[in-house]
Amino acid sequence: MVGGGQLARMMIPAAIELGIEIKVLGETPESSARLAVSEVGDYRDSATVLAFAEGVDVITFDHEHVPQPILRELVARGVQVRPGPHALLYAQDKLLMRERLGQLGLPVPDWARVSDAGELAEFLADHDGRAVVKTPRGGYDGKGVRVVSSASEVADWFDAAGGDLLVEELVEFRRELAQLVARRPSGEIAAWPLVETVQRGGVCAEVLAPAPRSAGSLSDTASDIAYRVAEGLDVTGVLAVELFETTDDRVLVNELAMRPHNSGHWTIDGSTTSQFEQHLRAVLDLPLGATGCRDTWSVMVNILGGPATGTLADRYPRVLADQPTAKVHNYGKDPRPGRKVGHVTVGGDDLDEVVYQARAAAAAFD
Amino acid sequence: MVGGGQLARMMIPAAIELGIEIKVLGETPESSARLAVSEVGDYRDSATVLAFAEGVDVITFDHEHVPQPILRELVARGVQVRPGPHALLYAQDKLLMRERLGQLGLPVPDWARVSDAGELAEFLADHDGRAVVKTPRGGYDGKGVRVVSSASEVADWFDAAGGDLLVEELVEFRRELAQLVARRPSGEIAAWPLVETVQRGGVCAEVLAPAPRSAGSLSDTASDIAYRVAEGLDVTGVLAVELFETTDDRVLVNELAMRPHNSGHWTIDGSTTSQFEQHLRAVLDLPLGATGCRDTWSVMVNILGGPATGTLADRYPRVLADQPTAKVHNYGKDPRPGRKVGHVTVGGDDLDEVVYQARAAAAAFD
Repeated sequence: MVGGGQLARMMIPAAIELGIEIKVLGETPESSARLAVSEVGDYRDSATVLAFAEGVDVITFDHEHVPQPILRELVARGVQVRPGPHALLYAQDKLLMRERLGQLGLPVPDWARVSDAGELAEFLADHDGRAVVKTPRGGYDGKGVRVVSSASEVADWFDAAGGDLLVEELVEFRRELAQLVARRPSGEIAAWPLVETVQRGGVCAEVLAPAPRSAGSLSDTASDIAYRVAEGLDVTGVLAVELFETTDDRVLVNELAMRPHNSGHWTIDGSTTSQFEQHLRAVLDLPLGATGCRDTWSVMVNILGGPATGTLADRYPRVLADQPTAKVHNYGKDPRPGRKVGHVTVGGDDLDEVVYQARAAAAAFD
Repeated sequence: MVGGGQLARMMIPAAIELGIEIKVLGETPESSARLAVSEVGDYRDSATVLAFAEGVDVITFDHEHVPQPILRELVARGVQVRPGPHALLYAQDKLLMRERLGQLGLPVPDWARVSDAGELAEFLADHDGRAVVKTPRGGYDGKGVRVVSSASEVADWFDAAGGDLLVEELVEFRRELAQLVARRPSGEIAAWPLVETVQRGGVCAEVLAPAPRSAGSLSDTASDIAYRVAEGLDVTGVLAVELFETTDDRVLVNELAMRPHNSGHWTIDGSTTSQFEQHLRAVLDLPLGATGCRDTWSVMVNILGGPATGTLADRYPRVLADQPTAKVHNYGKDPRPGRKVGHVTVGGDDLDEVVYQARAAAAAFD
C-alpha cells in the first residue's frame, strides 16, 4: 500500500484477520500506519515506489496522488496496480472526471472547463452569478474548492495553476449522499447501502447508514450510478461516489474516490464486511463479502482536531465509561485543529439515540 | 505482550483501533503475531523478559507459561504485570487451582493430590475404577490429561514428573460450557453471555454463542462462578472459566485461563466488544465495553490443521464465494495436522443454518 495515513492504518486489521501480508510505503516512520510501514519515502519519487513494489503481489493506495508516469512504469514492469492508472486518472483530475462521466451519460452538475477570467465570468452570467470553482488536481477535504460570485476571487489560481480550472453550478441540494461499491478485476461488484454524509467546512463530519428516508428508488438510482462509474472507468478496489440529492429530486455525482473513504468507516463496525476487508479482497481478485448492515442504524462521527492538550487516550476513562457501546477508532496522530485524528461509530435501533451517543462520544475528545 | 501466538496476533487489530501501542516478545521472527514482534527471545529467560519490559506501561500475556520468579522480579521492579503472578499461579498449577477454588467454596469435581500409584489406586477404588489424571503444569489442548482405569497408565508421569499429580472424578457431563469475563484492577467486571464449547480430542472444535437452552438460572450460575473466581483470585484481564454442565444438573469448574481464550474468539465478530479489545481495556484499567451479542447466534469453528498441501489462502476463492457472510481468521501459521491455524465465525438468526455454514466454511480449509 502506498501511503501511510489512517486508511492504510485501518487496512492492517483486515489484513491480519485474513492472513494477508501488508507492507506500507509511509511518508515518515511515524505515519499513522507505522506498524506496517516497511519503507519510508516519497511516493512522488519513481525509484522509491519501484523499489517498494519489488516482490509484492499487488500495489494499492491510501490516496490518489501517485503521479501517472510512476503508475504507468509499474504497469510496464508487470506489477499489478489496482486501481490501475487508467482508472486513477479520473480520481486525480476533476476535469477529466467530469468529461468522462458526461461521456458515460451519468448525471453531473452543469460544468465547464475555464482557462481565464473571461470564460469564468461567462459561466457565472449563465448561472445566476454564483458557481463553484475547483482546481482539477490536488484538492481534498474542501481544499481547492471555492464558491465565487466573481472571477477575481480565483485570480490567484489562474495566475498560479498554469492550467484550466473546473467551474460547476452551485447545486441546490437537500443533502449529500455517498454510494460505496467494491469491484474485482474479474468484474464482480458489491455495493453497501447508500449513506447520508454531513459535511462541515468541506470536511466529512458525520455519516448515517443507511441514509434515512432513502426510498427504494433513491437507493437504486445511487447504486446504478456507482455500478456504471465502476464499470465505465474500470475501477478495482473500493470506489466512493459522492452524490448530491437535489431539491428537485435529482441525484448528481459530486466527487469520486478510488480507495476506502471516510463515508465508509461505519462499515468496520456496522457491516458484515468492512470497506478495508473488501478493498483487500477486491484488489486481490478474491470473492467479495456480504455488505449488509449489522445494525438498524450506524452513525459515524469524525473526531476532528482532538484535545487542545494531551492525547485522545487521555479522554478514554470518561468516554469509554459514558459510552460502553461506542466503537472508538484512534488514528495515532498528534492532535491538531481540524485534523482527522479518529472517529466513533455507534449502532442501534433508534436513530435519534444513536446520533446523540455518537456525537457525545466524539465531542468528549474535543 | 509476552508470547507471539494467535492470541497476540488477534490483539493487534484491537490495539490499532484504540490507538494503543503494542509490542510483542515473540518466540521467533515468524511468530503468528510477527507484525508487532519487537523482540525475539525466550520467555523463560529472565534477562530477556526484563529487557523487553523496559519502557512499557503494562505487561500481559499470550500464554500462562512465564515462570513465577520472572513475574515476581518484574513486579519487584515496579512493572505493572496483569494478571499478576499471585493470580497467574492458579492458571499455571492445576493442583493449586483446585485447592484455591475449594477454599473459595466453588463447585469443582471430586479431586485429590496423589504422590504415587498407591494413592491413585485408592482414588480409583472410590470412583468406580475410572478417573482423569492431569499433570499440574504445562498441559494444554488435551496434553497432560489422561483418562485411566489403572495407576500403571500414568507410571511414566510418576517416574518423570518429580512431583504430585492431580486426579479428578470422571464427570458425567451433558455438555461443556465456558464463561468469559474481564476484570480491571479497579474492580469492574464484565461478563459475556455463557457459551457452549464442543471439544474433539481434547481440543476446542466449536463454540456456540450464546449457549443454546441456557435458561436464566444456568447463565446466572455460570456468571456468578466466574465473578467469584475473578475476584477471589484477583484476576485482571480476560478470565475464561471452562465448565461442565453435569447430567445431574450441576455446574462444575473444569479449567481456568487468564487471557483471551478460544471460547471467546466469536466475540471479534459477534459481540459489541471483542475479548481482545476488552483484555486491553482491562489490563490498562480503562472502562470495559458492552458485551452483548450482535447476532441471535454466533458460531465459531476452528480450522484445525489446514490443507495437506498449500496454504489457507489457496482456498479463499472457493470459501469466500460460497460463504459471503463467514468471517475468516487466518493465523498466518504453516498448516500442520491438528494445529490451530485459523477459525471461522458465522452469525445469524437460525442456529442450525449458522452451524451448517460455519462448519462448511471451516471444512473447506481441510
